[in-house]
This record gives sequence, C-alpha cells and structure tokens, in this order.
Amino acid sequence: MVRIKLTVSYDGTNYHGFQVQPHGKTIQGELERALWRLTQRKTAVVGSGRTDAGVHAKGQVVHFDTDSTIPVDRWCLALNSVLPADIVATDAEEVGPTFHARNDVAWKTYRYSVDRSRYPDVFWRRYAFHVPWPLDVPAMKEAAAHLVGEHDFTSFCSARTEIENKVRTLAAIEIVEENHLLHTYVRGNGFLYNMVRIIMGTLLEVGQGKREPEDMRAILLGRDRSLAGVTAPAHGLTLWEVEYAKNNGTQRVLS
Amino acid sequence: MVRIKLTVSYDGTNYHGFQVQPHGKTIQGELERALWRLTQRKTAVVGSGRTDAGVHAKGQVVHFDTDSTIPVDRWCLALNSVLPADIVATDAEEVGPTFHARNDVAWKTYRYSVDRSRYPDVFWRRYAFHVPWPLDVPAMKEAAAHLVGEHDFTSFCSARTEIENKVRTLAAIEIVEENHLLHTYVRGNGFLYNMVRIIMGTLLEVGQGKREPEDMRAILLGRDRSLAGVTAPAHGLTLWEVEYAKNNGTQRVLS
Repeated sequence: MVRIKLTVSYDGTNYHGFQVQPHGKTIQGELERALWRLTQRKTAVVGSGRTDAGVHAKGQVVHFDTDSTIPVDRWCLALNSVLPADIVATDAEEVGPTFHARNDVAWKTYRYSVDRSRYPDVFWRRYAFHVPWPLDVPAMKEAAAHLVGEHDFTSFCSARTEIENKVRTLAAIEIVEENHLLHTYVRGNGFLYNMVRIIMGTLLEVGQGKREPEDMRAILLGRDRSLAGVTAPAHGLTLWEVEYAKNNGTQRVLS
Repeated sequence: MVRIKLTVSYDGTNYHGFQVQPHGKTIQGELERALWRLTQRKTAVVGSGRTDAGVHAKGQVVHFDTDSTIPVDRWCLALNSVLPADIVATDAEEVGPTFHARNDVAWKTYRYSVDRSRYPDVFWRRYAFHVPWPLDVPAMKEAAAHLVGEHDFTSFCSARTEIENKVRTLAAIEIVEENHLLHTYVRGNGFLYNMVRIIMGTLLEVGQGKREPEDMRAILLGRDRSLAGVTAPAHGLTLWEVEYAKNNGTQRVLS
C-alpha cells in the first residue's frame, strides 16, 4: 500500500463542487470513479478542502492509498485517460503514510478573476466575473492591505458557518492587472466558508466607490457578516495552489 | 434602412461552424435568430467568411440591414441580451450601404494556439491544441518565413476546394511564446479552405524535427496537398481580426 499525493486541475463549471453529494457530479466522485476504473478497488480520495459548485482549481491537492502497481510517474497519464476532459491530473508523487492532504496544508492561494471588458470576453466567461463598470484599483489595493495579517474574519464568512474559531492569517493579497483582466490572489493559512468571495465582493464595492478602503477595519472589528459586501459569484474563483510544510504535519491549517 | 457592421466573438465549441446548415446550431443562425427576437423581422447576416465547426472568433465581422430604431450604441447590449453566452457582440457601427463584410475584407488574421504543457491546461482545453512533445520553435519560425509573401498555396489547401486561383498573400506569420502556450498569428489577404490548419500541422512537424524548415519551399512549389503536413485540429484556431480598407471596397480579398 502506498499513499499518492495528486495535484489536480479542473473546470468546475459542470460540477456540484468538490465533495461527493447525494445528487450531481462532483470532482471527488469523478476521481474516485477514475480510480475504480483503473484499479477495480474502491479508493477514498481526500482533498485539501472543498471547493463550491462552479469554483475551479488549478492546483487542488488530494491523497489516496492504493496497492496498484501503476508506477508513480504513470499515474497522471493513467488517470487522465479515464477522467473527463474538464478534470486533469497534473502531478503525482509518492508520500509517506502520515501525509494528509487536508490536515497538513500550510498555505492555500485562491485567485479571483474579474473581466473588466465592456462586453464579456467570451473565452473567460466561465472563469472571470464580468464587471464592466470602472474600478478604482489603487483603492482596492489599499482596502486589501487592511485584511492582511491575523484577524477574526467573522464578517467575511457565510453566516451559516458553524466553526467557532474564525481567526485566520492572510499572508498576502495581490491584485494584478493583466490587460482587461483583474486577478486577485489571496494567500492564507485557512479560509472560512465563502471567505474569498465575500472579500472580493467587498473589494469590488470599494472599487466602485461605494465604500472607502478604511471601512475594512470597521468591518473586521464588527464581526458581523452583514457589515461586509455581497458574495462575488463562484465562477470567478479558482483554487490556485496548496502548499505543504516541508516536514509534513508540523504546520497545520485551521479547518 | 441602415447597414450595421458588427464585430462578434464566439466560442465555436458547440457550433457547426459559422454558416447556416440544414442541421445543427450555427453562429450565423444564432445571430439571425437574435435579430428576429429584437426586431421581429427576418434579417440576413453576411459574415466576413465562414469558420469551420469548432473554430472560434475573437473579431469576426458581419453586416446586416435593418430599419430598427435601436440606436447604434445600444446594438451590442441588445444583441447580447438575447444571444447565447458563447456568442458576444463587441462592437457595432453604422456603415454606408455599399459596405460588404465579405467583399471588402483587406486582411484577416487567424491565431492558432498550442498548449505545450505536459498534461493539458484544463482552462485552455477548448482553445488550444495540446502538444506535449518538445518543439523546436526557432525551426518553426524559420519554416514560417518561407510562407510569407505571395504564393500559390495549393499544397496548403484542402483537396476538396473548387476555387481555381490559389494564389494568396501572407503579410506575416508571428509565433509568440507565452508561458506554456505557443500562439501563431497568420495575417493574409485571403485564406483557402483549411489553409491555416494545414500550415500549422506542417509547422508542428517541423517543430518535431520530422521536416526541415527549407522543405517549405518544395512543398509550396509542388502544388500538391499530399506534400504538406496533417490538418491541425479545429479547436486551436481563432479568427482573430478582420481588417477593412479605410475607403471601403477599394481593396478586395480573394474568396
């Protein structure tokens, strides 16, 4: 039995999120089905975390245990031969039996993409939120800076969340202009439910002049979801990268 | 009655090409249906030329005549409100009654995109041809240079073509590396059936070392489709831009 750490990219458009659901196709479900087709064994896939319906991933990480004789450098080819075209395995490595794709996460980076064209860029329609009105990007950057560091992110968390401890650390928020696209990269040691989408919805309100950059401080301190902006739509969000501590398991992410 | 020149982008994945067919959805068909929904009039849409099934467009140009009272600066919004999400009108202008989207074309530019990643980039899977083997890009550029200028492109034309005159002028072929993507822009005064895809298939064979850059001369001179390489797949191809002479109608493209 070996444990495989697998990096997976996917277009989430046609899926009901990462995690297996009673109804509808999911990324986890497709991965487990592909493993069954390759190995004829029921194999549980553990992801670094869920992604919501419609959210994409460039570098989602999962692990699974297998006694298959497929050599580690053939796993991607083998899986891609049976996975649907909108899920692609991009890296596989053998890891120790204590590695855990969720528990051992050190940092995660999400990217939220906005299409600023007057009319939607048809090639980005699945991957970027179309925002045709003017945006004050320097103001958005100033607002984002208030969120970096260790904070209680209750205000930027879906009110439905049951987790008690809502303190998380954001290492960086980088806002990058690339022609008509505006990419926001958020790197943190953990993310609450809808956190990046609520941060993004709030930053976009700053960009439109509906809020001031300094308002972010009061929103954080208020610890009340109703103080922050709307939840930006799922399709602009991509789980960009998952990082693990070199010595697995020493650094742990909060839920 | 006014004539409208409309620029349209589309993801060709789910269409049977530009031109109306007896069966299957087409871009022209969807545009005419959108015009019918807006104006309740049967309106013929004339494109700058066809694109094949699966081929995309960033800047396809069409014209149509209408007695609608929609102001010209509202046409894009109006059309986009009734078009499917994978067809987007990006520019509309009123032109004189002699402007013709096909007959007045001066230059067309196509882009062919190759994804050089080891495993497919899931976000480019509809828009780039996945070529995971090594490519000698300088050799491809050298080969492409032989095609620039006025030539008889019989060897780079589907044998099914009935057009007599196969002389066309390519103004430029630019090959641009952009991270894992290789974009080839081909600008010409006219294109034969499958011409860009056959040029691309042949350039990729040069890139793989199966042919020498100098072979392009003999292929051109031979005027025989069987001398050139395979036809690269449709989904990597995008009609990038259509240019018109400033004084409409003076410069004409060959079929």
